[in-house]
Amino acid sequence: MRGMSLIGLATDFGDSVYVGEMKAVILARAPAARVVDLFHSVSPQCVLEGAFLLSKSWPFFPEGSILVAVVDPGVGSDRRILAVRAHRRTFLAPDNGLLSFISKSDVEDMRVVENRSFFLPHVSATFHGRDIFAPVAGALAKGTPLAKLGRRTSAPVRLSDLSPVRRAGGLEGKIVHVDRFGNLVTNLSTRHAPRAIVAGRRRFRSAVRTYSDAPEGRPVILKGSFDTWEIVVKNGSAAHFLKLPIGSPVRQELS
Amino acid sequence: MRGMSLIGLATDFGDSVYVGEMKAVILARAPAARVVDLFHSVSPQCVLEGAFLLSKSWPFFPEGSILVAVVDPGVGSDRRILAVRAHRRTFLAPDNGLLSFISKSDVEDMRVVENRSFFLPHVSATFHGRDIFAPVAGALAKGTPLAKLGRRTSAPVRLSDLSPVRRAGGLEGKIVHVDRFGNLVTNLSTRHAPRAIVAGRRRFRSAVRTYSDAPEGRPVILKGSFDTWEIVVKNGSAAHFLKLPIGSPVRQELS
Amino acid sequence: MRGMSLIGLATDFGDSVYVGEMKAVILARAPAARVVDLFHSVSPQCVLEGAFLLSKSWPFFPEGSILVAVVDPGVGSDRRILAVRAHRRTFLAPDNGLLSFISKSDVEDMRVVENRSFFLPHVSATFHGRDIFAPVAGALAKGTPLAKLGRRTSAPVRLSDLSPVRRAGGLEGKIVHVDRFGNLVTNLSTRHAPRAIVAGRRRFRSAVRTYSDAPEGRPVILKGSFDTWEIVVKNGSAAHFLKLPIGSPVRQELS
Repeated sequence: MRGMSLIGLATDFGDSVYVGEMKAVILARAPAARVVDLFHSVSPQCVLEGAFLLSKSWPFFPEGSILVAVVDPGVGSDRRILAVRAHRRTFLAPDNGLLSFISKSDVEDMRVVENRSFFLPHVSATFHGRDIFAPVAGALAKGTPLAKLGRRTSAPVRLSDLSPVRRAGGLEGKIVHVDRFGNLVTNLSTRHAPRAIVAGRRRFRSAVRTYSDAPEGRPVILKGSFDTWEIVVKNGSAAHFLKLPIGSPVRQELS
Repeated sequence: MRGMSLIGLATDFGDSVYVGEMKAVILARAPAARVVDLFHSVSPQCVLEGAFLLSKSWPFFPEGSILVAVVDPGVGSDRRILAVRAHRRTFLAPDNGLLSFISKSDVEDMRVVENRSFFLPHVSATFHGRDIFAPVAGALAKGTPLAKLGRRTSAPVRLSDLSPVRRAGGLEGKIVHVDRFGNLVTNLSTRHAPRAIVAGRRRFRSAVRTYSDAPEGRPVILKGSFDTWEIVVKNGSAAHFLKLPIGSPVRQELS
Repeated sequence: MRGMSLIGLATDFGDSVYVGEMKAVILARAPAARVVDLFHSVSPQCVLEGAFLLSKSWPFFPEGSILVAVVDPGVGSDRRILAVRAHRRTFLAPDNGLLSFISKSDVEDMRVVENRSFFLPHVSATFHGRDIFAPVAGALAKGTPLAKLGRRTSAPVRLSDLSPVRRAGGLEGKIVHVDRFGNLVTNLSTRHAPRAIVAGRRRFRSAVRTYSDAPEGRPVILKGSFDTWEIVVKNGSAAHFLKLPIGSPVRQELS
């Protein structure tokens, strides 16, 4: 690892003081750390969306990076906090499915974060992002070994709906993200060419390659930058058009 | 102080080019400075909300930090700009109550920012954040002594409603922040156990410890991470539920 | 140029994972680079607004900075990507008018970005910000000469409506930005004193100097911080009041 790591923050905190407080705590502990906002716009408490975005975006961070993910509806309950070394990076997240994309064989080391000497002196019941995740991330950035955070563990919670399920004639997936442009992002991989994709009461047969290629004012499917199928409306919002929230089922018929 | 300070920016500029311009000006003057977004989501021109958030979040910044707060409805008028050394940090803000939390005995030095040699050459009447606060923050980050900014002063404007007022049988407080999750944050300290909290036409008797402990779809009170009472709805938005804007009175009955 | 440049990011990506992915890619290539969010709040795919904001904000960045602008409705089509050295800074943008403010005589060097060895190995059809702009910005920050990016070119696309047009008795401009406060920003320069400004069905005769000077609840004009005329409502939103979207014509009558 380099002298100083890059720290990516991934939360559902939006544009709020909560992110700023986390950064202040990290930099108070690790003044030379580089903190990057990975995302904060996940729908409040939507672990599925957070898990999807994290699974797709961590590879763009260089080896040695620390990814801190806080989408945490169970904050203050007895859900565990995990620190995981995998893919030559370190992941810190509540054990609620956010790290579903890390398979058992990827794990180099996995710890329950429980050593309170790394926490802020006063830990609130509602904001572990600031009181636990941030100071632990600061400690990791300064080179604290994972082993000091807590006992080894091996069984993280997995989301059942992060990956599509094979069904007769196709794949059953979900809308897992609605982006700033109103594009409806699914978890259906573009590795599989679809005969059709069915979302709500609509059936999409042909895909376009770019937004430019799409017709005006009509939803179409497109290979998205997450390497999954997206439903988009050129110069418009597929989200406004179709009114399908995150978690809505999407079926991919295979040829 | 260290060689290079951390600068926290706290504004009501939202996700706008105004924050970017401030950062460019700061880093043009102090290339090695570290700039952290503390908050920008304060309701436009709401000094009360800005003052509350700043009062709660500055302690997470390390000693030697510079906190720059710009919630400034009086920009361009004759309101003063203050630079204050207190709590081993430096605060820069319009003299409109944003620094109400700094008491006279906390002040190590307080100056009126008036030495134009630290300002941008052209000062607009509407954006002192970029034209005055940012270059002055850059100068401070490079070690300019406070005394060079202007004459000493001692009487900052104070908000009358930042702290609750004692009334017969209780405390009269306010809603001072609505966060990203729709939680209604009050300025009523959790040091005082309430017999009840009254907001709008509702009376809350029992508090929950975490969001997990709350019932679905019903507002309850909870010890928030600012160490004040909050009204929250589990997996929902108390703001949508109660429709109480910032500034709404909240009464805490003491036992 | 200094050892390490400042990189300003200017996009229409809002508060999204797309910005975070760009930063991760830049810092993976150029770990010591400083990345600043210039703006991300441009209306989706609104090149006019992006071009206006970029034209006004780049001067606040120090010489040697790299400005990366991605408002790119033509992503994946055959629109070109340009890297331009002008005003002692480097600009990277799609060739769609975003760089309209750079005149021929300002250009020190202008290249078509086409050398794929600087791109990510896999280039998606929909997200060149991450797959082309970010790695190229990282290469530039590490000192890659412009000449290595591609062949020289000289004819960038220009927006016809970024600057006002002279008409009988006045200037025909546009609303080019709506800011966080609901101020309607025009491209009409404050160098010209107006006899009146006409927007929609309203005619504004007198300007105020600051928000404080404005009457409550009534739109007025004001010299904005971009050095253009703005229509504002004190403690309110001119955007809500007038309902004029970006691109709406605004006429300035000259005395």
